[in-house]
Amino acid sequence: MTSSRHIGPLFTDLYELTMAASYFQQQSFATATFSLFIRDTVARNYFVAAGLEEVLAELDFFQFSEEDIAYLKQTRMFQDNYMRYLESLRFTGDVYALPEGTIFFSNEPILEVTAPIIEAQIIETYLLNTIGSQTIFTSKAARCIHAAKGRPLIDFSLRRTQGQDAGLKVARSAAIAGFAGTSNVLAGKRYHLPISGTMAHSYVSTFDHEIDAFYAYAETFPDNAVFLIDTYDTLAGAQKAVKVAQDMRKRGHELQGVRLDSGDMVFLSRGVREILDEAGLRDVKIYASSGFDEFEIDQLLAKGAAIDAFGVGTKVGVSADAPYLDIVYKLVKFDGRNVRKLSPGKVTLAGDKQIFRETKNDNMAGDIIGLRKEIMAGRQPLLIQVMHEGKCIVEKPSLENIQSNFKANFGALPEQYKSIYEIKRFPVRLSDRLIDAQKDI
Amino acid sequence: MTSSRHIGPLFTDLYELTMAASYFQQQSFATATFSLFIRDTVARNYFVAAGLEEVLAELDFFQFSEEDIAYLKQTRMFQDNYMRYLESLRFTGDVYALPEGTIFFSNEPILEVTAPIIEAQIIETYLLNTIGSQTIFTSKAARCIHAAKGRPLIDFSLRRTQGQDAGLKVARSAAIAGFAGTSNVLAGKRYHLPISGTMAHSYVSTFDHEIDAFYAYAETFPDNAVFLIDTYDTLAGAQKAVKVAQDMRKRGHELQGVRLDSGDMVFLSRGVREILDEAGLRDVKIYASSGFDEFEIDQLLAKGAAIDAFGVGTKVGVSADAPYLDIVYKLVKFDGRNVRKLSPGKVTLAGDKQIFRETKNDNMAGDIIGLRKEIMAGRQPLLIQVMHEGKCIVEKPSLENIQSNFKANFGALPEQYKSIYEIKRFPVRLSDRLIDAQKDI
Repeated sequence: MTSSRHIGPLFTDLYELTMAASYFQQQSFATATFSLFIRDTVARNYFVAAGLEEVLAELDFFQFSEEDIAYLKQTRMFQDNYMRYLESLRFTGDVYALPEGTIFFSNEPILEVTAPIIEAQIIETYLLNTIGSQTIFTSKAARCIHAAKGRPLIDFSLRRTQGQDAGLKVARSAAIAGFAGTSNVLAGKRYHLPISGTMAHSYVSTFDHEIDAFYAYAETFPDNAVFLIDTYDTLAGAQKAVKVAQDMRKRGHELQGVRLDSGDMVFLSRGVREILDEAGLRDVKIYASSGFDEFEIDQLLAKGAAIDAFGVGTKVGVSADAPYLDIVYKLVKFDGRNVRKLSPGKVTLAGDKQIFRETKNDNMAGDIIGLRKEIMAGRQPLLIQVMHEGKCIVEKPSLENIQSNFKANFGALPEQYKSIYEIKRFPVRLSDRLIDAQKDI
Repeated sequence: MTSSRHIGPLFTDLYELTMAASYFQQQSFATATFSLFIRDTVARNYFVAAGLEEVLAELDFFQFSEEDIAYLKQTRMFQDNYMRYLESLRFTGDVYALPEGTIFFSNEPILEVTAPIIEAQIIETYLLNTIGSQTIFTSKAARCIHAAKGRPLIDFSLRRTQGQDAGLKVARSAAIAGFAGTSNVLAGKRYHLPISGTMAHSYVSTFDHEIDAFYAYAETFPDNAVFLIDTYDTLAGAQKAVKVAQDMRKRGHELQGVRLDSGDMVFLSRGVREILDEAGLRDVKIYASSGFDEFEIDQLLAKGAAIDAFGVGTKVGVSADAPYLDIVYKLVKFDGRNVRKLSPGKVTLAGDKQIFRETKNDNMAGDIIGLRKEIMAGRQPLLIQVMHEGKCIVEKPSLENIQSNFKANFGALPEQYKSIYEIKRFPVRLSDRLIDAQKDI
């Protein structure tokens, strides 16, 4: 059972295994450092680190199963002594990483691995996929949180995420960024998230009259009912919700809310608010859902929509405006010497690195990327050593800890960088010693 | 072990379970039919059905585990008799679906479920996610296959897909559309796909000289080597590859290919081809990879790039130009009567349906969406009954069968609808009887 959550070392590009075969044949076991970072991406001013919890569990477990080896053998690509080597291979490296929930910027290392080259190489694909996808989700969710200006958001994306793993990770990532809940029941179970949801149009359609659906639902969930009121006519639906809510009140129950899922959300939400308020139902919340993302949330609120909470789905679940990031894992040190590939327009920073962050009056003021061994007074080093010789050396933070970390980071990020429309580059510079180290290569 | 591949019924939106709780309390077990389809999507002229294999395995297994029930109980949202009901719930419905690899169009039913309302409702989220995501991937891959005009494509997307499941499903989906292989080792193992891959820039960087990397790699893989030649200077890299290939030939081995991963691909591929040809290495293939999608493949070939095969990654793995589809699952029949939600601009076709396809001179000529019970001479009904009373009644097709089905479908799709640039709507109309059935509601 413990292993069922691990995807295993075959979750990799074949070239990781062929390169490793060649290193093995040459008995090249020198130590390498790889750095994971995101190249400049115009669609995002900042990123939110995520995925580390899963990475640590996977590396801790790292092991080719008998079945994995049997599969590799039958490809007839590899020699037997290499297969025996892989059988006994474990991850024995050191890992430095940004804690989940930390805000970071382009070109800053998210994670650095130092290990015998074969180990450091084989995990490349897994690290890129895991950290990359979860960072995409968390960064997108943070933009929505900003746009919602304190209104609760609920993740409704499961039906349209790119597969099962994405569905689960979007729910967790959204929670890191401060979403109040998710419709995703399995994610609720797995990550201990509040789950949320009531009814669909199909439910209302199965009753002869809309109001019958509301009465039936209130009977089953007298203290936890949100009625979907747009199946036929939203304002008429609101009147029916009022009628049922008043009958519920007579029996000692309160309607929690109504949900709008289509139409002119500004006009309708204000109309519904008026109907509810006039009936003395000021505490009944208005939920809205309809393909929202940070842009639509921002525009609806700017236009005065009377929406108390948003169900946020598809566009956030696939990060529609930036469905991938240029995330890379580059060799920066090999056998004691710094290394980098020189490509026009593509910077790779050689050497073991650290990010040093300056905070002034509780605001992030600027980052310096330096050598890991540097000490900078008054600046906080952001990368933490999380593994030593293949063993996890940090306690797994609770989701609450991760949420607090994000909240503190986001609170310290100056407003201009939170813009969902404008590109604003946070000041990140290189230390003199890091610059010098690049010249030595 | 058999259950480890099943995600289970908690992979659902909470509202499926709350609606079901209300149906249960009312003892509403009437039969419902839901239809799964994609609303008009400008970015795609056609879609390729995928995901059915997994759906059938999941529905066949459908069962809440003790752990699932324990989780639901501790939410304190549900009554005990409903929990006992869910414990014994199995899927007992009928399913009609398009075989994987079938080409279909907007508003056509991909899958229709007829089952007691609770069963049909609870599987909604899972069906949308599974069929939706795999159809997105397969449809994107088909566009690349078209653009490549017969040149082999290899899936390199694993490092940047939206999570683990997406990584595996992209590889399978790409194979359905005719990709020649994947870099994804786990997908190779799981779906019996050819796997492919050789070396990264980091490998070349660990050697003092580029040519040493080629010699070392050729030693390990003398009959299966592709050298990455753009780490420093592509044309100089090609010269070194020639030198190593000539030495390999003396020992009875042939270099398989070289790979370009950056730079002006038209200029460089032609230059490299010339260098290889002049050295008598006409059979050495030129592979190219660099964030390609159907648009770049098309443009490179139009400009005369000398590329024999493409490694296709990120943009295809997330379907970057259309990362989600407006896929929906709508109630179309309940307790013997046809049902539909009437929303402006959103058509739902009530009733049990079938797609009837006309083919003329081996070309698809037009589809009619009709009632399932209709018989149309000279037209092929596309939806197949795949489950009867909860049991799968079709043999699981091999991947080869699915590939053949796609190939036959794609071969019959007139060229104009294959355009990756122009929006061309394939003729799909409704049968008179289906239109009449809409009026009865």
